[in-house]
Amino acid sequence: MTSLVDMPCHQERPSLLSASSGYENYRGFLNLLYVILALGSCRLVLENILQYGLLVEFDWPLRFIQDPTNWPSVLLILLVNCFIIFEFVLQLKLSHTLILNSKAKNKWICLQFLNFITILIFPAAYVYYRQPNPVGAFIAVCIYSIVFLKLFSYVHINHRCRQALIEKKNDSHESTNVSKHPVVYPNNLTYKNLYYFMFAPTLCYELNFPRSPRIRIRFIIRRCGEILVLLSLQYCLGQQWILPILRTLDRPLNQYSALQNIERLLRLALPNHLLWLILFYVYFHSTLNLLAELLCFGDRLFYRDWWNATDLYEFWNRWNTSVHDFCKRHVYKPLVDHYGFNKLIGSLVVFAISAFFHEYLISVPLRMVRPWSFLAMMVQVPMGFAVRLVRSESKTYGNVAVWISLILIQPIAILLYIQDLFYRDFVKDKS
Amino acid sequence: MTSLVDMPCHQERPSLLSASSGYENYRGFLNLLYVILALGSCRLVLENILQYGLLVEFDWPLRFIQDPTNWPSVLLILLVNCFIIFEFVLQLKLSHTLILNSKAKNKWICLQFLNFITILIFPAAYVYYRQPNPVGAFIAVCIYSIVFLKLFSYVHINHRCRQALIEKKNDSHESTNVSKHPVVYPNNLTYKNLYYFMFAPTLCYELNFPRSPRIRIRFIIRRCGEILVLLSLQYCLGQQWILPILRTLDRPLNQYSALQNIERLLRLALPNHLLWLILFYVYFHSTLNLLAELLCFGDRLFYRDWWNATDLYEFWNRWNTSVHDFCKRHVYKPLVDHYGFNKLIGSLVVFAISAFFHEYLISVPLRMVRPWSFLAMMVQVPMGFAVRLVRSESKTYGNVAVWISLILIQPIAILLYIQDLFYRDFVKDKS
Repeated sequence: MTSLVDMPCHQERPSLLSASSGYENYRGFLNLLYVILALGSCRLVLENILQYGLLVEFDWPLRFIQDPTNWPSVLLILLVNCFIIFEFVLQLKLSHTLILNSKAKNKWICLQFLNFITILIFPAAYVYYRQPNPVGAFIAVCIYSIVFLKLFSYVHINHRCRQALIEKKNDSHESTNVSKHPVVYPNNLTYKNLYYFMFAPTLCYELNFPRSPRIRIRFIIRRCGEILVLLSLQYCLGQQWILPILRTLDRPLNQYSALQNIERLLRLALPNHLLWLILFYVYFHSTLNLLAELLCFGDRLFYRDWWNATDLYEFWNRWNTSVHDFCKRHVYKPLVDHYGFNKLIGSLVVFAISAFFHEYLISVPLRMVRPWSFLAMMVQVPMGFAVRLVRSESKTYGNVAVWISLILIQPIAILLYIQDLFYRDFVKDKS
Repeated sequence: MTSLVDMPCHQERPSLLSASSGYENYRGFLNLLYVILALGSCRLVLENILQYGLLVEFDWPLRFIQDPTNWPSVLLILLVNCFIIFEFVLQLKLSHTLILNSKAKNKWICLQFLNFITILIFPAAYVYYRQPNPVGAFIAVCIYSIVFLKLFSYVHINHRCRQALIEKKNDSHESTNVSKHPVVYPNNLTYKNLYYFMFAPTLCYELNFPRSPRIRIRFIIRRCGEILVLLSLQYCLGQQWILPILRTLDRPLNQYSALQNIERLLRLALPNHLLWLILFYVYFHSTLNLLAELLCFGDRLFYRDWWNATDLYEFWNRWNTSVHDFCKRHVYKPLVDHYGFNKLIGSLVVFAISAFFHEYLISVPLRMVRPWSFLAMMVQVPMGFAVRLVRSESKTYGNVAVWISLILIQPIAILLYIQDLFYRDFVKDKS
């Protein structure tokens, strides 16, 4: 009776934001990020219209055609088909030589090796001599790198299928379960199969990909809308927020005081990180989902929950599923399981390959070989150990350390590249 | 066997950010918000030091004492004790008159009524005549409002206890379970009990509050650190980001074009919302937890998960647990359960009282009665219906609508107040 009279309404309960509460549903804050981005872009558009009037240009296709620095990149992108078709022909040839160590087979394998090397060297040489627009060159070099990795996976899997077929011929009493796998080697060696894989949002070749039942038109429209809005937002952010900061650099970094450099770094870090988050969403969510929907590709797990990663290794495992699965399937596992290497060496090789491609994608379009992007990637290994130490204190601290390293390392590399561009152009002006 | 040969690694899976995936753990993005706030404030501090050198002033206690406009507010805050003590004396008197409808009792109840009215009128009159600094006046008026609500709860619960005691005397065979409730009426009528409630982070009086076992020093240090850092950050944000926007207003709003007003509104909305988020954290998490820890107050649920609210009513139910519990316990339930009012009318009364206090807290310190804050609160009722319609489409849209209304309504009210201040000062200059 007393309990009803004084209407008790308090209990011993923790606050939800305390780590001890165990509460974790913050979906609403993700929506807040979306709302802030949307309102922020509305404001930028309005400000722009108020300052300059309506300046939308509908002639960009014409201007694209008329700008001569764009054409070398388009040509370069189209030329990648030569490498794909050449590799396909080699695979067809190899599928006919099911005897081990034949002379013909060695010839095809040599040509294959040559093909892989050329895929990486050709665009670099082309960009160096033709000097296209860096943005177009960057897109072309990305496509070449993706094709390189896809063909590597294609060759690896076809090689294994060929080996299995040879073993089965020698050991003919073994039966395989074909019913679950409609396409078997060598029936997969068709242009249609290869080009489906080339366009599919994955780097790992499989003879039979999981397929989604149908194409949803509303899904496609929404993804296209996202891409359009977010790319415009990125463009505005870059013009309004990042370029003005970079323009304040009027001499090499070592001629500023340490405090001034740190201040500029922090000033650059936030818009750069925002741009990176938008890029993540546009590429890994909108674009890859759009591609998958158009191709009825069933596996949409292009990223895992990297935002909750409590150390850097977890982050690299989760943030780009395609690359992670590729490295695990075609580099780490063969090294560790087949060749018997140490696990640490396997991981280091994976990081080194990843670092090489990060550097390749930056150095070639800028026509300037600098170690910054390679180092930014390789420094992740020792930093990962440091973050693990932080994580042993609390998982939240580990997650915070991951965010800090993500926010700070990129702008450091950007400032170093800009300084080098500055030196290059300075020297050019002098000579 | 084939399955091992082509190493399948794809399955039919959705992307995590798709609503269809059912994935909801975004704790990492909350940490990202913290990191961005911390890095942003570091940058502001650095920029400030680079521009002005180190200007930290350690003489603010001295300056506070010397500024004569601060003293009226301090005096006002101290005077609140008169009302608390007067109410306590009245409760003591009432506890002695356990006979219903006695003449003495009616006298005490009339005095009580007078006391409640004076608590609200006295600070308004005081601020109007003494004209203190608006910030100090705002804090004083907040304290008076909190004391008003607390005393209302205190009177309500003591009244119910007294009624129960009278009924028990008439109907003496009923037994109460005392063991679970160490303090029973009228033993709770002590200064210690009343002042514990006055300082406790709740508006709902209980004879026996849940208590936490001990004071954790590390917890207190962390909360104090948060308060210090975040209040400095708020100060910097206000100075650097919000004041420059407000200073661009050099004539009344209706003399600008609609596009210009919308642009200014959007420009103001984001820093204002950031300030509001920080204020939420400083007050509802850091300060109330600090107070609770110092008082060993067990119930730390000062806010529920309002960030996931899918309509405005859910938001108002979750965002301030103290006020929500007070309104439910002392206004809504008595109206609906005891007096038999309609539920809708109960809700409207709660919103109207809340709107009155929102207006009171703004109008009194500015010495300017305007309906904007009252209207901003009352407009929540029809807007809530609109948001429910949006929510029926998808819960995510509902949450987005809640964020948009939170982000936009505050700066609209702020701009209207500033316009009115502008008119008032303009008229003053003319005369």
